[in-house]
Amino acid sequence: MKYVDINCDMGESFGAYRLGNDREILDYISSANIACGFHAGDPATMRKTVRMALDKAVAIGAHPGLPDLVGFGRRNMDISPQEAYDMVVYQVGALQAFIQAEGGTMQHVKPHGALYNMAATKASLAEAIAEAVYKVNPALLLFGLAGSALTQAAERIGLRTANEVFADRTYQQDGTLTPRSQPDAMITDQEQSLQQVVRMVTEGRVLSRQGVDVSIQADTICIHGDGAHALEFAQNIHEAFARAGIQLRAFAAKS
Amino acid sequence: MKYVDINCDMGESFGAYRLGNDREILDYISSANIACGFHAGDPATMRKTVRMALDKAVAIGAHPGLPDLVGFGRRNMDISPQEAYDMVVYQVGALQAFIQAEGGTMQHVKPHGALYNMAATKASLAEAIAEAVYKVNPALLLFGLAGSALTQAAERIGLRTANEVFADRTYQQDGTLTPRSQPDAMITDQEQSLQQVVRMVTEGRVLSRQGVDVSIQADTICIHGDGAHALEFAQNIHEAFARAGIQLRAFAAKS
Amino acid sequence: MKYVDINCDMGESFGAYRLGNDREILDYISSANIACGFHAGDPATMRKTVRMALDKAVAIGAHPGLPDLVGFGRRNMDISPQEAYDMVVYQVGALQAFIQAEGGTMQHVKPHGALYNMAATKASLAEAIAEAVYKVNPALLLFGLAGSALTQAAERIGLRTANEVFADRTYQQDGTLTPRSQPDAMITDQEQSLQQVVRMVTEGRVLSRQGVDVSIQADTICIHGDGAHALEFAQNIHEAFARAGIQLRAFAAKS
Amino acid sequence: MKYVDINCDMGESFGAYRLGNDREILDYISSANIACGFHAGDPATMRKTVRMALDKAVAIGAHPGLPDLVGFGRRNMDISPQEAYDMVVYQVGALQAFIQAEGGTMQHVKPHGALYNMAATKASLAEAIAEAVYKVNPALLLFGLAGSALTQAAERIGLRTANEVFADRTYQQDGTLTPRSQPDAMITDQEQSLQQVVRMVTEGRVLSRQGVDVSIQADTICIHGDGAHALEFAQNIHEAFARAGIQLRAFAAKS
Repeated sequence: MKYVDINCDMGESFGAYRLGNDREILDYISSANIACGFHAGDPATMRKTVRMALDKAVAIGAHPGLPDLVGFGRRNMDISPQEAYDMVVYQVGALQAFIQAEGGTMQHVKPHGALYNMAATKASLAEAIAEAVYKVNPALLLFGLAGSALTQAAERIGLRTANEVFADRTYQQDGTLTPRSQPDAMITDQEQSLQQVVRMVTEGRVLSRQGVDVSIQADTICIHGDGAHALEFAQNIHEAFARAGIQLRAFAAKS
Repeated sequence: MKYVDINCDMGESFGAYRLGNDREILDYISSANIACGFHAGDPATMRKTVRMALDKAVAIGAHPGLPDLVGFGRRNMDISPQEAYDMVVYQVGALQAFIQAEGGTMQHVKPHGALYNMAATKASLAEAIAEAVYKVNPALLLFGLAGSALTQAAERIGLRTANEVFADRTYQQDGTLTPRSQPDAMITDQEQSLQQVVRMVTEGRVLSRQGVDVSIQADTICIHGDGAHALEFAQNIHEAFARAGIQLRAFAAKS
Repeated sequence: MKYVDINCDMGESFGAYRLGNDREILDYISSANIACGFHAGDPATMRKTVRMALDKAVAIGAHPGLPDLVGFGRRNMDISPQEAYDMVVYQVGALQAFIQAEGGTMQHVKPHGALYNMAATKASLAEAIAEAVYKVNPALLLFGLAGSALTQAAERIGLRTANEVFADRTYQQDGTLTPRSQPDAMITDQEQSLQQVVRMVTEGRVLSRQGVDVSIQADTICIHGDGAHALEFAQNIHEAFARAGIQLRAFAAKS
Repeated sequence: MKYVDINCDMGESFGAYRLGNDREILDYISSANIACGFHAGDPATMRKTVRMALDKAVAIGAHPGLPDLVGFGRRNMDISPQEAYDMVVYQVGALQAFIQAEGGTMQHVKPHGALYNMAATKASLAEAIAEAVYKVNPALLLFGLAGSALTQAAERIGLRTANEVFADRTYQQDGTLTPRSQPDAMITDQEQSLQQVVRMVTEGRVLSRQGVDVSIQADTICIHGDGAHALEFAQNIHEAFARAGIQLRAFAAKS
């Protein structure tokens, strides 16, 4: 039996604003990345989302982002490694308290948006984030882009890592994601997307845009929780995995 | 030998803005209430203030406030008990992570400004705050106004509490503080202020504005860390205690 | 021919968060109250909403609120009259610049949520808000609850005012709204709601909960732009007015 | 008689936080750049600073910044030209309302910190900012780094511009500022700083770090209002100008 983790960003509502189909999506994933109030989320949303994830036995992670609510944490900011360290410690701690209050444990940390992207390539930011996670709790997992500076920094400091792949993104022959600025960065055909992700899990390989097969480590699959077809896609990936004999399991549950 | 705790609000700088004489004041207190980013403070300030307090062996507490940076958490807001619970869990957790990362432990929680004042009289808010602290960590102390709804709620739920008194405020014959709206709410004469606080600690009594002596429990003395004479006052209270045979000791260190 | 104004809160989206059906609702109203970034709204949303309103020839007003994004400006805050003045000047100015840049003019100001409610009864806040509007531009209209402290203060200072009524709220025999804390504060039956509002416009009277008919001045009707049935209700009120021979017209257009 | 403008950033306090010596510095400058609430400043500070500037007959400008209070607007953010446009319109409008309420007029706009620096070299941002200013009020001046993309964009769109020079920064032989990352970016010797600025005004020339004399247009001199020696430096530059027969005059007053 093959196992894989599916993770999804959650708890991105804010005050009167609702975002995502958290309650429904939770039925199809094994790890929830919960926003911590900087790019999205607020204390009430964090509490409710933690409670829902625990009720559905979905593993919980912190999803810290840049302090840019109006930009949803998607705009790169020229922050120092020390600033990255500080904002990760703060946000991980805030979520940890809700998990503690609800009687659960935190499985992982996955940076959000621009923080995730910058840490994928900037070693100094990657190291600062890994150190922040390690010093708050060395038993936490760090989720990062497969083969990125972030997962490398996490491994160097002694954290367990999960290499993340994307169902709906195309890959380059060096194993990196095709930048979104390029026309074929996204896979819009859902069938093709499902085939790619099943193959990444079962064979550890993906066909790059250049037509060359490259190897890739798929510890956890990222899916998106908002948008019109999010729930449908979550169900479809779930079924495609079942047909391929792949079972859903939170990464930390790995023996 | 008589022991008492002196606490002071700390870590209230924000970004480029500096507030308070934290480094100097730390030499004269036993407990530091560190702001958590809502009414004041930011992640970098929290980290640095935690580090300084640990270096000077001063016990650390979280100082959560209302989400009102421009009003410094001093304006009452019509929040629900659930909202009070959520904002306390969030802020205590954020500070807890910095303490964890620096290798310390959290001693106590003391709400700030309008949150402190509202919780002193509104039982529903007091209970929500006490529950938040208890669920994050039942070993934490809760600092509240001596004899207030907050310390009562904390005791009911099973938290240890510290009854707080003020050196520079006058008291009513029912043991409450004279409201700041009244002309003689503040004691501006420093000698009188020192005498009052020494007597509260040694005799457990304070002379009320009405001329009647009332009993009061003085577990911890609050002093202010900003203002022109903050440091001088901290030194003077320190010396006055030494003369009176009162020794400074963090409240949690009480056997 | 009878004329009336229908106003609706608009531009309450924020960053990635969408709220309301602004584009559709604009077809059924004559005045748009546009959020200014404190309780809701952001610069991009303000620009787009101003543009849409101008394109549909709907009169534009500023909709300033309390600095409480997470609470959507609905929680009372203990602000001073000076603070109310300052936050109204700031927000009205910010919106004014977008209107200027798009080639329009501002018709009115209507405070939002808790600021509206507090100003309805607290004369000092009402006067501060009226003064803020007057000093920025004495030609602006001020929208307030019919018969409230806010419209009274506005008239005293020399502003034109529009007395606002609600289609879906019940009234007391003193002409005030039934507080939301009471069970029959809201009219949930749409037919009844339409009859009430038509009668307020055509007869200047409303049947109070106590069964007594009271007189009321209905210069402008407030409808809500979010919720499942907002658009349908806007259409229905539009048709009910047409049947009753009432024509929609922005208040400032009144000769 | 030679005339020159001296400008200084002002109104950068926030809530309980005080920054700068605005009241004293106003005696030595002719143009005040007032923060608008994004990187610094708040509505109350804006009102008070506008009032002080008017009382001392100092010309007023808006000083819009990035939405990054904790970073004081000094961290580059990857914003789009549209976002730059929107945030400038918003902030200029907010300040304009206070000036209107106090009975004054706005002279100029000068972007702050990272927004200023990014606009000095990125043409698309520079154009967006210039367009924002122009559409709010085409009579406004735009202050930008001498010879930068910002002043060029402003001139293209039809705004009057003021080329800004710095007393305490060294220049490159291409007329640009030496980046702060280089060791001799700042002139720490005050006498040397005064000589440089007098020569820039009287001769239109500056000695570059490479030892080559370069020509520079000095319409307005930027001085800093915070720091221990800010006031002293303001006085000294004032005196140095008097000795050199240079008279202080707000740029817009130029015939």
